[in-house]
Amino acid sequence: DITKEEFEARFKAMKSCPGHYYVTVVEDLDKGKIVATATLAVELKFIRQCAKRGRLEDVVVNEDYRGRQLGKLIVSTITLLAKVVNCYKIGLDCADKVKLFYNSFGYSGEKGNDSTMIIRF
Amino acid sequence: DITKEEFEARFKAMKSCPGHYYVTVVEDLDKGKIVATATLAVELKFIRQCAKRGRLEDVVVNEDYRGRQLGKLIVSTITLLAKVVNCYKIGLDCADKVKLFYNSFGYSGEKGNDSTMIIRF
Repeated sequence: DITKEEFEARFKAMKSCPGHYYVTVVEDLDKGKIVATATLAVELKFIRQCAKRGRLEDVVVNEDYRGRQLGKLIVSTITLLAKVVNCYKIGLDCADKVKLFYNSFGYSGEKGNDSTMIIRF
Repeated sequence: DITKEEFEARFKAMKSCPGHYYVTVVEDLDKGKIVATATLAVELKFIRQCAKRGRLEDVVVNEDYRGRQLGKLIVSTITLLAKVVNCYKIGLDCADKVKLFYNSFGYSGEKGNDSTMIIRF
């Protein structure tokens, strides 16, 4: 958990980078409560004629609201948004168990070129 | 290919996002020529206590300069840089044929959680 000050500092840092962060939420208007979120993170490149690359990040649905297609709603929204803001592609890293879910939106691995590798510090 | 104006506009946009783009180059000082490059792209997050995530992007070595360990030099540099600027992890997406290369720096896939999927627009 983070303090309000930490949140605001991070929010300000993200906001100061135009076109980089599209934090999208679903709100339960009756309860005034955010119940799902996902972020489109955009990276600017020099390659591919100064392309923009989108990434789908941090998809979360409140557990009390699961089974209502909110994940589908928010993933569809982010995917469309990436196209609208002119990303040449959008990608995500995911666990094997959710690959079929993302396949249903058109995401796929490219054979022989679909590995993600990391170092955790 | 891009015009000088397009390059400069993109450079300016990247520069206006502090801490997001670390475009790293190797220069042949005798020839005044850039011969290798890679970029550390940083994404700010709210999750993980406002963490920063690094990504290794756009690794290129001029073909006349291959076989001289410049790829190794620049990948090591970017990886260290990600740690220095406090990324909690650094990741990359890659083709199967270069997985062993990245393994040698400590990058690895997490079993059952190492797929990357995309949509190209």
